[in-house]
Amino acid sequence: MSKVELLPRIKSPADLQALSEPQLLRLADEIRGELVRVLTTRSAHFASNLGVVELCLALHLTYDFSKDRLIWDTGHQIYPHKLVTGRYDQFHSIRTKGGLMGFPNPAESPYDLFMTGHAGASVSTISGLKAGDDLLGHKDRHAVAVIGDGALPCGMVFEAFNNMAGLGQNALVILNDNKMGICPRTGGVAKYLDQCRMTGLYQGGKRTLNDLLKSIPLVGEAARVSLEGLRDGMKAFFKDGMLFEEFGFRYFGPFDGHDLPAMRKIMKDLKGQKGPILLHVFTNKGHGIPEAADDPVTYHSPPVFEKLGPGGEILSMKKGGAKGYTDAMSSAIFGVLSSDPKACVITAAMCQGNKLEKVREAFPKQFFDSGICESHAVAFAAGMAKAGAKPIVDIYSTFLQRGFDQIFQEVCLQNLPVVFTLDRAGVAGPDGPTHHGVFDVPYMRIFPNMVSMAPGDEADIEPMLKFAMAHNGPIGIRYPKANLEKIDRSVTPIELGKAEVIEWGEDGCFVAFGERTVACMAAAKRLKDEDGLNFGVINARFVKPLDTETILKAVDLLPLVVTVEEGTLEGGFGSAVLEAANAAGLDSRNIVRKGFADRFVEHGERAELLADAGLDANGLVSLVRKHREVEAEAGSLSGAGIG
Amino acid sequence: MSKVELLPRIKSPADLQALSEPQLLRLADEIRGELVRVLTTRSAHFASNLGVVELCLALHLTYDFSKDRLIWDTGHQIYPHKLVTGRYDQFHSIRTKGGLMGFPNPAESPYDLFMTGHAGASVSTISGLKAGDDLLGHKDRHAVAVIGDGALPCGMVFEAFNNMAGLGQNALVILNDNKMGICPRTGGVAKYLDQCRMTGLYQGGKRTLNDLLKSIPLVGEAARVSLEGLRDGMKAFFKDGMLFEEFGFRYFGPFDGHDLPAMRKIMKDLKGQKGPILLHVFTNKGHGIPEAADDPVTYHSPPVFEKLGPGGEILSMKKGGAKGYTDAMSSAIFGVLSSDPKACVITAAMCQGNKLEKVREAFPKQFFDSGICESHAVAFAAGMAKAGAKPIVDIYSTFLQRGFDQIFQEVCLQNLPVVFTLDRAGVAGPDGPTHHGVFDVPYMRIFPNMVSMAPGDEADIEPMLKFAMAHNGPIGIRYPKANLEKIDRSVTPIELGKAEVIEWGEDGCFVAFGERTVACMAAAKRLKDEDGLNFGVINARFVKPLDTETILKAVDLLPLVVTVEEGTLEGGFGSAVLEAANAAGLDSRNIVRKGFADRFVEHGERAELLADAGLDANGLVSLVRKHREVEAEAGSLSGAGIG
Repeated sequence: MSKVELLPRIKSPADLQALSEPQLLRLADEIRGELVRVLTTRSAHFASNLGVVELCLALHLTYDFSKDRLIWDTGHQIYPHKLVTGRYDQFHSIRTKGGLMGFPNPAESPYDLFMTGHAGASVSTISGLKAGDDLLGHKDRHAVAVIGDGALPCGMVFEAFNNMAGLGQNALVILNDNKMGICPRTGGVAKYLDQCRMTGLYQGGKRTLNDLLKSIPLVGEAARVSLEGLRDGMKAFFKDGMLFEEFGFRYFGPFDGHDLPAMRKIMKDLKGQKGPILLHVFTNKGHGIPEAADDPVTYHSPPVFEKLGPGGEILSMKKGGAKGYTDAMSSAIFGVLSSDPKACVITAAMCQGNKLEKVREAFPKQFFDSGICESHAVAFAAGMAKAGAKPIVDIYSTFLQRGFDQIFQEVCLQNLPVVFTLDRAGVAGPDGPTHHGVFDVPYMRIFPNMVSMAPGDEADIEPMLKFAMAHNGPIGIRYPKANLEKIDRSVTPIELGKAEVIEWGEDGCFVAFGERTVACMAAAKRLKDEDGLNFGVINARFVKPLDTETILKAVDLLPLVVTVEEGTLEGGFGSAVLEAANAAGLDSRNIVRKGFADRFVEHGERAELLADAGLDANGLVSLVRKHREVEAEAGSLSGAGIG
Repeated sequence: MSKVELLPRIKSPADLQALSEPQLLRLADEIRGELVRVLTTRSAHFASNLGVVELCLALHLTYDFSKDRLIWDTGHQIYPHKLVTGRYDQFHSIRTKGGLMGFPNPAESPYDLFMTGHAGASVSTISGLKAGDDLLGHKDRHAVAVIGDGALPCGMVFEAFNNMAGLGQNALVILNDNKMGICPRTGGVAKYLDQCRMTGLYQGGKRTLNDLLKSIPLVGEAARVSLEGLRDGMKAFFKDGMLFEEFGFRYFGPFDGHDLPAMRKIMKDLKGQKGPILLHVFTNKGHGIPEAADDPVTYHSPPVFEKLGPGGEILSMKKGGAKGYTDAMSSAIFGVLSSDPKACVITAAMCQGNKLEKVREAFPKQFFDSGICESHAVAFAAGMAKAGAKPIVDIYSTFLQRGFDQIFQEVCLQNLPVVFTLDRAGVAGPDGPTHHGVFDVPYMRIFPNMVSMAPGDEADIEPMLKFAMAHNGPIGIRYPKANLEKIDRSVTPIELGKAEVIEWGEDGCFVAFGERTVACMAAAKRLKDEDGLNFGVINARFVKPLDTETILKAVDLLPLVVTVEEGTLEGGFGSAVLEAANAAGLDSRNIVRKGFADRFVEHGERAELLADAGLDANGLVSLVRKHREVEAEAGSLSGAGIG
């Protein structure tokens, strides 16, 4: 690894212009060194950032993004961009609470236009930026989106292509093709891109008319050419870019995205051209670090590295620690698929994140990877369910938002038995606001026919999945990115709309929806030990249908009922309890709702974020103590009024 | 028009097999006659159904959809299908309450697999059906989706193409290309399809190698051919289908979709083929009825016809009656765009439905039609807002569900000033459950930074739009498909989070979010006139931020507060009021929430559906009377308990 010498001097992209060609190559080296140095100390996006160093430099050398527009799709490959846009000094703080975000963040820098994290939106936003600049008379501002081949099949990308071409916008879309999403890519477009990679042009060859003629199949014995044969030959020969050209783009490529001088030259050439352009570049995830380049799936967002060699080379990765809810759900899915040949699982390119690799290997016919196509994945599952199969849609809470309308029309409206397993439901830690899954409790209970569950602890997961598979209608299970814990109790079976009373207590109770049940148990214990209070815990299990019998009994009888959820309070679990209490004519002043307030949750470690929101045992204990104090005071006054 | 003779004898598609070729042509005529006969008596989808008669017959003649799978995308072209699948006798009831639905409905017939209405899902669901059938060992079941060119640019269609090709599914997608969505199509794909239409093959010509050579541009003086010129020539020559072939489909077409014998032949040929196939057919919306074929936009879903000629020809259409909220909003948009050159409006192919034709003509640079691409439309608007423009996203409440994730990431997370005007928010009348917009109140208040409004009457619309344009963040205005009415009052200005107290009354009050304020006024008047009650009405205007000061004062002081909303109760406006009351420590037993219960609302006239839900003046009066009776009874007993 190079000593860091040039990088600290880059205070803004303008400083890049002063560097010579050899200095730029050295800078690329230094950036890689800095990435390895910082990213080996924490879990972060690794391989993708190593892959875009030259691309990033070429872009900032060609354009002036203090006025031109640049969107990095998805955004987890933003690190080199951060390093050359004045954030080298803060880079050590990346993905820590209060530090730099691991995704673009307009609050950090005017060079970050959109906070992103969900894939495939860049072409739409750059198109909007261009249209806005044109409307406001800033026609000279250039517009560039960089999108990976993993994000390419997102439906909204094609929607954007269609519209950009229709508008004839002067805009550049760079397809950063590294043969990967987070997992190996799938589908027709992937095959198409693979074929582009095989062409002579990229391989360094030169195409001649002779090659073309050789590629055309002949008909019969004579050297006659059929129209169909000619067409197929032409298709193979001119494969590159035809897909994009048909959409109305002009296509350039494929080029080697690691060849910085070549990248600069082509970008400079394209800068003056009119109309929508697609520039296709090949890069390697993990470029420059052999271990990462060889295994970009593992090195997509690896854990902390345990050992580095003297040259900075990675010797070993820290073994994963405690098992999490994702592990437990993937085991449960494995079990369900092995016992029921009609059962199947659908992932939207998150095979690694959802730990479905073993399922994919063991049950290839029951495993479907849609790519980053959540809308399709949900509607596809609905079709499977209609045919009698039993699909599990295994998608992160926040990404399932892309399938919201399909949950409505294709699943709930048809009342089809599709099982949704919503991973990362709750805070997602250092990934931050684009990845936190704090909105699904309200959005999964909006539509009729849906059943919505959350396991109170590890012991609920497998029974819940089995219950869901047997349920004849739409049903969801949300669970967090958290370590597994098991509450010491005799677990009651899962019954539709039935909560589990873990402990009953006369002084009040926590009614928790989901894994926070564990924190409630700890809080109840402390309230007993330290305050002598007899506080109960109800594991709600269902938000829809809600166990009104059990929960309203608590509301009716106890002085304090605290609803606890790892999600937004707007229309969430606590609101469902208020609705039920209201419908039953109950006084609900003794209900206190605990969850996330109505603002976006920042990035940070799970424990930090939960503590900040008062959703850990400490916070829950404090809440109860404070509430009792206020009540005691109010009790000495006359009645309640508006606050 | 033919006398109806054959059609009544078609009890199931199997009966079609017995008909001779001339009889089938006659049947097509009879179907058109029946469509005209019934559809001239009510507003219904007209031109699209006339366009698919032969296609529908060819499909049912070729396949056995009692086991094979058929999805009509969007579904408003389902009428001929209903007529030949045993529903001729009920056809007179179509789009009336309790009668046949104007879209596919599995509850009516096993030949309708999915209740549809939102465009672009057919390819995903047919792919899921095929995958399910394969998994369950029914590999012999054929799978066919019919999708219009208007729905083609939906992102999820390309997601589905990508996945079907990846899976190599044996499935047929028929592109029913009539050059139209509901409005004229736009974008790169539209241009591409136009080029297909120009090719010699469809024009009846025959392509030869000679033609190809003529199409290749020559370089310089000599008859030399450049690779690029060859490529462009090839592209023009082989235009047809290249787009789909690149996705991994085999393409056949274009063919004349009104040529029944030809359609039967090609479908029969394709039936035995392997892999995903795209069959491209051209049809004419309104085929067979010259007025409709000449003006398919007007005849997409025309009002009742006033006068038919002796031969059944349409002489005049009934003039639209009273103006509706859509008219008022489109006028307000017109005004805003004329006074602010930074303002612009984005429609997702609903130029007609949203009555934006005049806006489109007057402000072509400030008008954007994304096609049926709601996801893109929202993200595009966010880009425009980031650039300093002031975009209005004018999309039906139910279709905006497709942009849910973009509302989250591209708009709310960035806190960008995008204005959403949610048309058809509430019941959409005869279109039914796929078109009712009864879920947006909860889904628009889930995300931080959003402001959500609804006009209490006509007088609120323009001031609300102006307020929204001046607001520096995401903001939505929902309004129903209803006639305009103006409440007699001195209208107070729109202020962020401020409700309008229209009347205060000691006996209780209605707190309405949206146009139901008008019904509340009528109910209050009747309660005064008939019951001597002094009942107030609050025009809430905002659900987020809620006017807690005004509304909680009512909750605190009055014996009965009825929240009224034209939307689902799950997490809706009433729940927001409960949340606020709870946060303020108020007893909320005097709050009664009125809205739609947790089940899908059927189709029917607006007045019928509102009456059924108790959301008209009658229902609200009854609710108050009943509540007072129950309270009076309970008052004579001791305290309240669980119901």
